Amino acid sequence: MRLKKPEAIVLVSGGMDSALTAAIADKKYNLNFLHVNYGQKTEMRELKAFNEISDYYQVTNRLIADISYLGKIGGSSLTDSKLKISKADLKSKDIPTSYVPFRNANILSIAVSWAEIINAGKIFIGAVEEDSSGYPDCRKNFFKSFNTLIRIGSKAGSGIKIVTPIINLSKKEIVIKSVKTGSPLHLTWSCYKNNVIACGECDSCALRLRGFQSAGVKDPVNYKKLISYN
Amino acid sequence: MRLKKPEAIVLVSGGMDSALTAAIADKKYNLNFLHVNYGQKTEMRELKAFNEISDYYQVTNRLIADISYLGKIGGSSLTDSKLKISKADLKSKDIPTSYVPFRNANILSIAVSWAEIINAGKIFIGAVEEDSSGYPDCRKNFFKSFNTLIRIGSKAGSGIKIVTPIINLSKKEIVIKSVKTGSPLHLTWSCYKNNVIACGECDSCALRLRGFQSAGVKDPVNYKKLISYN
Repeated sequence: MRLKKPEAIVLVSGGMDSALTAAIADKKYNLNFLHVNYGQKTEMRELKAFNEISDYYQVTNRLIADISYLGKIGGSSLTDSKLKISKADLKSKDIPTSYVPFRNANILSIAVSWAEIINAGKIFIGAVEEDSSGYPDCRKNFFKSFNTLIRIGSKAGSGIKIVTPIINLSKKEIVIKSVKTGSPLHLTWSCYKNNVIACGECDSCALRLRGFQSAGVKDPVNYKKLISYN
Repeated sequence: MRLKKPEAIVLVSGGMDSALTAAIADKKYNLNFLHVNYGQKTEMRELKAFNEISDYYQVTNRLIADISYLGKIGGSSLTDSKLKISKADLKSKDIPTSYVPFRNANILSIAVSWAEIINAGKIFIGAVEEDSSGYPDCRKNFFKSFNTLIRIGSKAGSGIKIVTPIINLSKKEIVIKSVKTGSPLHLTWSCYKNNVIACGECDSCALRLRGFQSAGVKDPVNYKKLISYN
């Protein structure tokens, strides 16, 4: 008799980090996918990627949470139509204009609420410390602190834990591991700016392209401007 | 010259605890009100209370955040139409059926995102430890842990802090303090079940009525069933 796998929630934005995280979680858990719409300009395209990745992993239990109030409060170039998506500056130590304050706390809180209901013990998030130095809610100690909050603030014995399996990887290693695990790179979407052809110039495109270029792998996604970031 | 007061966010559900919390914050801060719709059955009535309390305090900066995905995931009698609102059992130590998992983490995360944008240093929440023993995300150590999370996960130097000015008060003391500070009790709404006349029987009505009865003050709100809880 085959034992039923335990339940896990995976946060799936539609980018390659979350697709790889799903590939890793898939080995040991029964998957439940959470996607969050926070009013970002590329939401339509991300949702398409989310659904195609869900189909790929045959995940039927999908939750799409609309937290577009984060768009209403403004302040980020991802959601505020008055602000322009800035071109990548991978050497800068400033917080980029695409920063949405405390975004991961919002997303993880939804995941914990859902996890309590469906008895999922693990919440997988594809956060990567290296390329998120400007985002305070992407660092290891943030997730550690969030796990403490869950222990204190959820039903006794829930045992829910955030898991960050790729947090120590570089984008190069992510590309290599994605190829190895058969993660559906061709279905993923990373661009912050465009919905049809990736711009190649925003922070997210730049990080992705640098990863592919240093891994020596061809990105299956098409770009408007194919810049070398090595 | 009069100095401009610093900005604060107050979470205003529409109940008497949040109205008193607003009265306390009003003394030192410029108020910004946040109301959350999480798909609860009495949302329409709570929103009316929210807007009337906002008018009372002359607060123009109002954010109504729709997190009705908490309704979609189900599991709580407040949001799940298949579950009945249970009658109050104030002596029980079980988590009541009205429990929405990790609700306060969801609400506070929104508040922190907003606070970073409008440079508010304080977030006031009218949580009360005494009457929320069944809710793990209403206890003092939960808010303490959340303040740690904010320090780690928000922009360096934001200094945002959750403030819980009535957490140690009993419902009796809340009624007495509300009368003293001129909090608009007549505009507040607490019932979990009804939208026109409060039921008098749900957890929230029972706690409220017990507070008024032990303070010897007449509740300005009308009840379908006026039960004695003393």
